Amino acid sequence: MLKVGIVGGTGYTGVELLRLLANHTQAEIVAITSRSEEGIQIVDMYPNLRGYYDNLAFSAPDMKILGKCDVVFFATPHGVAHSMAGELLASGTKIIDLSADFRLKDAEEWSKWYGQPHGAKELLAEAVYGLPEVNREKIKTARLIAVPGCYPTATQLGFLPLLEANITNPLHLIADCKSGVSGAGRNAKIGSLFCEATENIMAYSVKGHRHLPEIKQGLEMIAQQPVGLTFVPHLVPMIRGIQATLYATVKNHFTDLQELYQQRYADEPFVDVLPAGTHPQTRSVKGTNVCRIAIHRPQHGDLVVVLSVIDNLVKGASGQAIQNMNILFGLDETMGLTNIALMP
Amino acid sequence: MLKVGIVGGTGYTGVELLRLLANHTQAEIVAITSRSEEGIQIVDMYPNLRGYYDNLAFSAPDMKILGKCDVVFFATPHGVAHSMAGELLASGTKIIDLSADFRLKDAEEWSKWYGQPHGAKELLAEAVYGLPEVNREKIKTARLIAVPGCYPTATQLGFLPLLEANITNPLHLIADCKSGVSGAGRNAKIGSLFCEATENIMAYSVKGHRHLPEIKQGLEMIAQQPVGLTFVPHLVPMIRGIQATLYATVKNHFTDLQELYQQRYADEPFVDVLPAGTHPQTRSVKGTNVCRIAIHRPQHGDLVVVLSVIDNLVKGASGQAIQNMNILFGLDETMGLTNIALMP
Amino acid sequence: MLKVGIVGGTGYTGVELLRLLANHTQAEIVAITSRSEEGIQIVDMYPNLRGYYDNLAFSAPDMKILGKCDVVFFATPHGVAHSMAGELLASGTKIIDLSADFRLKDAEEWSKWYGQPHGAKELLAEAVYGLPEVNREKIKTARLIAVPGCYPTATQLGFLPLLEANITNPLHLIADCKSGVSGAGRNAKIGSLFCEATENIMAYSVKGHRHLPEIKQGLEMIAQQPVGLTFVPHLVPMIRGIQATLYATVKNHFTDLQELYQQRYADEPFVDVLPAGTHPQTRSVKGTNVCRIAIHRPQHGDLVVVLSVIDNLVKGASGQAIQNMNILFGLDETMGLTNIALMP
Amino acid sequence: MLKVGIVGGTGYTGVELLRLLANHTQAEIVAITSRSEEGIQIVDMYPNLRGYYDNLAFSAPDMKILGKCDVVFFATPHGVAHSMAGELLASGTKIIDLSADFRLKDAEEWSKWYGQPHGAKELLAEAVYGLPEVNREKIKTARLIAVPGCYPTATQLGFLPLLEANITNPLHLIADCKSGVSGAGRNAKIGSLFCEATENIMAYSVKGHRHLPEIKQGLEMIAQQPVGLTFVPHLVPMIRGIQATLYATVKNHFTDLQELYQQRYADEPFVDVLPAGTHPQTRSVKGTNVCRIAIHRPQHGDLVVVLSVIDNLVKGASGQAIQNMNILFGLDETMGLTNIALMP
Repeated sequence: MLKVGIVGGTGYTGVELLRLLANHTQAEIVAITSRSEEGIQIVDMYPNLRGYYDNLAFSAPDMKILGKCDVVFFATPHGVAHSMAGELLASGTKIIDLSADFRLKDAEEWSKWYGQPHGAKELLAEAVYGLPEVNREKIKTARLIAVPGCYPTATQLGFLPLLEANITNPLHLIADCKSGVSGAGRNAKIGSLFCEATENIMAYSVKGHRHLPEIKQGLEMIAQQPVGLTFVPHLVPMIRGIQATLYATVKNHFTDLQELYQQRYADEPFVDVLPAGTHPQTRSVKGTNVCRIAIHRPQHGDLVVVLSVIDNLVKGASGQAIQNMNILFGLDETMGLTNIALMP
Repeated sequence: MLKVGIVGGTGYTGVELLRLLANHTQAEIVAITSRSEEGIQIVDMYPNLRGYYDNLAFSAPDMKILGKCDVVFFATPHGVAHSMAGELLASGTKIIDLSADFRLKDAEEWSKWYGQPHGAKELLAEAVYGLPEVNREKIKTARLIAVPGCYPTATQLGFLPLLEANITNPLHLIADCKSGVSGAGRNAKIGSLFCEATENIMAYSVKGHRHLPEIKQGLEMIAQQPVGLTFVPHLVPMIRGIQATLYATVKNHFTDLQELYQQRYADEPFVDVLPAGTHPQTRSVKGTNVCRIAIHRPQHGDLVVVLSVIDNLVKGASGQAIQNMNILFGLDETMGLTNIALMP
Repeated sequence: MLKVGIVGGTGYTGVELLRLLANHTQAEIVAITSRSEEGIQIVDMYPNLRGYYDNLAFSAPDMKILGKCDVVFFATPHGVAHSMAGELLASGTKIIDLSADFRLKDAEEWSKWYGQPHGAKELLAEAVYGLPEVNREKIKTARLIAVPGCYPTATQLGFLPLLEANITNPLHLIADCKSGVSGAGRNAKIGSLFCEATENIMAYSVKGHRHLPEIKQGLEMIAQQPVGLTFVPHLVPMIRGIQATLYATVKNHFTDLQELYQQRYADEPFVDVLPAGTHPQTRSVKGTNVCRIAIHRPQHGDLVVVLSVIDNLVKGASGQAIQNMNILFGLDETMGLTNIALMP
Repeated sequence: MLKVGIVGGTGYTGVELLRLLANHTQAEIVAITSRSEEGIQIVDMYPNLRGYYDNLAFSAPDMKILGKCDVVFFATPHGVAHSMAGELLASGTKIIDLSADFRLKDAEEWSKWYGQPHGAKELLAEAVYGLPEVNREKIKTARLIAVPGCYPTATQLGFLPLLEANITNPLHLIADCKSGVSGAGRNAKIGSLFCEATENIMAYSVKGHRHLPEIKQGLEMIAQQPVGLTFVPHLVPMIRGIQATLYATVKNHFTDLQELYQQRYADEPFVDVLPAGTHPQTRSVKGTNVCRIAIHRPQHGDLVVVLSVIDNLVKGASGQAIQNMNILFGLDETMGLTNIALMP
């Protein structure tokens, strides 16, 4: 039984870890920390968990307790994992970081986008980018895993087969992405209020979103060449879900794209290539770790349209984190991740 | 492994049975019928089930196949179970009917509310009303179980301890109930359209709703005396959930109602009495078989306000049906019913 | 042309005043104050108003400017109008207060519910409760008008004809009310986040809501006798709208309630009694100053069910405030209030 | 006072015409037709219109009455205007057609996309495409106006200045569009049910949507050269609104795009170019005839991103129809179209 710690458990990715781990048969939560909510019972904040964590309360972070865990998840704002990672690793605890702290390989780039110095440059080299469909082997032996962001997961899985097969022009990629409001986190912001977010759609951060350099870095690793990407995120009035609508120009008109995608993802437990001509719905993956993808070439032109959907809090965060944990500790990769989306 | 058949699988209670049974370790679906969708793959209609029922298609109802099942669920409009129940029972198959066909004990009353003659009066006497918190013992030996409706489940569980303890005036009960739109089923009706139902709340059927006689019958069984009930249902812009706000006048001011409810439901796996002073949220039970209840006596007056919430498609339909199946076949009552509500 | 000032213009009732006054032909806004947003252009915060207030910015409250207005609206949290009302009235400016500051006649009661001393007791006697359907004559000559709250408006208009006709038992009234999320204001609170409020319904403040004493006081004025009221508010996932479902026991079974309500409201421009047997929808009054009411007596029993709907931000706040202004200054009572609800 | 007829008044564009014309001072509705709802009072179907059309009922289409109108709006499915237009025009009545019947200039192309022969080819030449920002002069003298579709309006207004200025490559345009559910009309379809459409986003018709040829034709008229367009529509869980996110490659890097757009639309009453760096919200135009546009060039690259939002039922249908009527009859172009979007 793995001993699990969670640092920063009051946000949406924190409670999602709790939900998913409640039915995981090989993991046990020994501590969940929150300075602001210290002493509060989990089930008082999250009544959906009544009956599952009736004796667990938020506690102040305590390195003595966390250092005895097999693995600690960081479900924190950026900067927190920087300050605690070194000591935790030294105590032999593995780290799975859901924040952005170790996603970018270039500390300067990180500083530019996050507006503060990188706090743990010495760990950047060994941090593994936790996208199992790309880095499964590296994940198995990692000490420190950076779980990909939500937009980056949906976008990279959508473009991946095209770039690996080198049949597209990588300099003119477009990712028009739509996210549910939970992507903004459980923060009391005017823009995330029900009355501000419902009955509305809007683009935001068009001049530059923090996930842009992460996606670009990931795609360049896959393509093994420079990538040009325009990334436009939108806010959609729903709780969960990301739809990435991806545009790329095909160089080779003779490739069977449907076949290409199906073969690439044939052995992936959490990537589901839909039949040709169909359109994935975000609700079909709500609460699950699945990424559903469909490929189109409208009017048989040279533009490919890839539709890729995930649940931003699961495959885009906490579910993928647990998938990484399963891989890291040699468990069945799907353990704890087999629940089915509600429809309706 | 129980052999399970589902008659009428294309509605919301049908797909909910599929979702819940997919992770049930002791039940296997051998047939799911739909005349209109015969031959259609389950996963083509419900992509959330991809990977779980990849080889199952809707078929026309065939008594030879259904008659070999251990149990058949009816997830049909009213009238269908009437016509098939007798033959199925004769073949030794148990029936768990999610429709209204066998809920009312009085065939005349049924006719009045459903606008057609009762089609299987001879089975009414033996049909067991499948509310486990009241009829668990009878369910164990039943051949034919009528699963309670959604409003009736939330309302009866809310009033039950008051009526059993005989500390309220049963002639002036009020149930002000609010339901999500899925209660109207997966039917193409103007009133259920997104654009008609969202950003709105309305009462409906105030002069008389079909669940009124069912609730009244149930409450009278519990109270062992006549009951007067005013029942006002409302339509709320959300997919799932029923909130029953119940009003009753207390006769005995000295009873500790919190204690009364906690004791009554102490051994019930799916009724959760919340701490005093709190308010249940429907989202805390979304997708689960739990009924959450809180009890209030505002300004210490003689009026009790009971707040009772369920997921109308689970504890109010398919989940309760499976709970009945588990009881009926001697399985752990919670089998297949342990998933946790998404929050958010 | 009336010179209008608005104190506290950044909340939902403030922007609603701006929207409604933009098309009012006899009123001109000369100042709108906000300490926190001083200098911000109105249209930068509320782009829906682009083209209507292109030269208006939020300013710090300045008694010299406000004191030259014909009328000042307070769209502020409680306590603010207390501190400014005396000086404004002294300068000859009329006050229409949308906050709770002058709604309760009893300063002690006010203190109990609002948790602070009443700041302008000397003005309580002359403050007029601005429910035109009850106090139209007093409004015409008022200096200080307390605009009723949202729940109180829907509830009082619903019970009014019953109480005036003295055909109900006033000691056992129940108001089961449902409100959209905008009732919580434009405040960055976790509970008002999209992800917390959508796909959910819940009761709140069952042990006592601040609108309870206001409703009780209003009903007692109407009934001219003591009133017993149980008031249970609920939060519904929609932006605007209140549905009050009201329960009262009828003493006289021979009264034609439909006729009673139609006659009582025959000359009211903003109360619309629906045909017998129908159910009002909140969306039918969205954005308008109309209250729609339907009356039911289910199963011909002694319990009357009144359904009353308003838009909480219009008839429940800013629209009613302008209706008061129109009455106060001898304008057509409907001026600026003739827009029609969007459907869908 | 213009005498106005509406053919097909039971859909969302029909009721929207009613709402907007209710406050139009120069137009009077003399007939609104619906075969299926003949005899039904308008206000019984649309209670938001109570007090405005209390004596108007749906009637069967009668050419004697319609032929005496100054103008008839068709708010019908495609094919209906084909069959009635000739006779109406012969009687001297002007036609403003909200359906797709006269939008495409090529009857063959129309047949291909709409799956039936074109029913009035002889009128195609004179039909004027009613996009005032392009065809205002032609509209003034038209007899038959084809009101643009919703996606085509948002998309053409967004691309227009770029194409007129010839500073983009017109062969690689992308329109990633998001629409509220009212775009699907008031039809009882499973896919438009609340429970199917809420908490979800999905692309649809990627292989080819009926608005594609219309947009292409319009853009080619503007560009005066062939255009290549990829158009991907998405369904968003909101009632109203279209967000078109448009991608085009700039040829000339020195043009000030912000200035270009502002100048082009300086005199347009219903196109509002937002300040540089901002993002339009669909809710800011809800219920209004305004198109709001913002222009971005992310990371100063060669890709322009134009964000264009409208209300699909107003500027995308009924409001634009009335704008056409105003132009056609020499009225103030904004008459009846000055209401303001609700926020929130």
